[in-house]
Amino acid sequence: MYQLHYWPGIQGRGEFVRLALEAGGAPYVDVARGPSGKGQGMSALMALLEGDDLQRPPFACPALVTGRQVIAQTAAILLFLGPRLKLAPAGEADRLWLHQIQLTIADMVTEVHDVHHPIGSSLYYEDQKAEALRRAKDFRRSRLPRFIGWFETVLDRNPRNEGAAVPRLVGARLTYADLSLFQLVDGLLYALPRATRRVLKQAPRVAALHAGVPRQRRLAAYLASERRIPFNKVGIFRHYPELDG
Amino acid sequence: MYQLHYWPGIQGRGEFVRLALEAGGAPYVDVARGPSGKGQGMSALMALLEGDDLQRPPFACPALVTGRQVIAQTAAILLFLGPRLKLAPAGEADRLWLHQIQLTIADMVTEVHDVHHPIGSSLYYEDQKAEALRRAKDFRRSRLPRFIGWFETVLDRNPRNEGAAVPRLVGARLTYADLSLFQLVDGLLYALPRATRRVLKQAPRVAALHAGVPRQRRLAAYLASERRIPFNKVGIFRHYPELDG
Repeated sequence: MYQLHYWPGIQGRGEFVRLALEAGGAPYVDVARGPSGKGQGMSALMALLEGDDLQRPPFACPALVTGRQVIAQTAAILLFLGPRLKLAPAGEADRLWLHQIQLTIADMVTEVHDVHHPIGSSLYYEDQKAEALRRAKDFRRSRLPRFIGWFETVLDRNPRNEGAAVPRLVGARLTYADLSLFQLVDGLLYALPRATRRVLKQAPRVAALHAGVPRQRRLAAYLASERRIPFNKVGIFRHYPELDG
Repeated sequence: MYQLHYWPGIQGRGEFVRLALEAGGAPYVDVARGPSGKGQGMSALMALLEGDDLQRPPFACPALVTGRQVIAQTAAILLFLGPRLKLAPAGEADRLWLHQIQLTIADMVTEVHDVHHPIGSSLYYEDQKAEALRRAKDFRRSRLPRFIGWFETVLDRNPRNEGAAVPRLVGARLTYADLSLFQLVDGLLYALPRATRRVLKQAPRVAALHAGVPRQRRLAAYLASERRIPFNKVGIFRHYPELDG
């Protein structure tokens, strides 16, 4: 039984781990969303983040607890979970390539967040809106097409995608990076729908991955459930119409 | 023989790989700094970044080429090199913990960069100086002490540091994350000397690591050589006095 520690009210970076746990059919507890009477809830999350008894403390959540091991950093958690949930290829080089793609997804997630928080997470959006307008323009013009264009190239050059109904980033089977790219595109379509739809027109394989990944049986059940937190204005992907264009 | 592909005029993210290669005594070619007559230089770097024949193209450099494998993303390169250069511990859980620390160093490096480029890398510093002043203030007050404080805690809680002359992040032997933390602190002392010295007073173990790591024989030779590019105003760590305080 895995324990996922993440903020209860948002998808955030925790969602990339949730998607892997759900699609992989792994039993897990979403700790901060559980009842405090059972030792769960926010106090359990804060104990993990701020406790002074942990030899290897997370810098931030998400954190995955399994047995006595505490693993933080989204990409490191997925590196660990991938083979265990059959969401990673078998060979060392293939696994490293998958991880490399995941790290690039993580980089883009950070930039998506900083579009609405270019000055600092400790300030409200309203207090950095002028800067956000400038950063959003740069993101839409420069970074968004560059990242999505790279994912398109990766899908295009994966030889196992020839004739496949749904393209995969690595090999022929679903991996955690496919789940993460689905989530990234889904979040972008929520946050910056106009700019994202425009870029996806030039990236048909990325669009096909985004459309096809949620058809996986377990993932479809999860996305239709109450476990899937809706996008909102406190998460990483936020829809401020003035930042789109 | 490893090939390191990185921009020739800056330390940048390539330096975290260079330090591992140098401290590990690995033979390598710093491709973009080599002669174009030998198939090196900028044209070789650009061919790697923009060539359309690579099945697994890097999104950005640094990239490490070894045999037919091309590995990008600094933390992924170090994950690969660690065991090969004897700069990583033996066990799987210890290696993942080391990697988790490296990913947190990478997150801080991104934030250090964004202090002088909060709006976008496609614009000059002078065109985002007002925003940089605000971001630098938030970084000095909030992020710098938080990150350095976490590294201090990690060093404090490593049981193998008891009685050690130079503390290590993981286990008792030098790892690539120790090299990277040295580099991060070194860069911060160059870019934001006043703010960094103030924070290091509260983080004696981080300061001791920064002072002790460069005493390793091979690393000392490297740092004194012309292979070590000096800090400058086009790299990640830039000294703009107005951003310090």
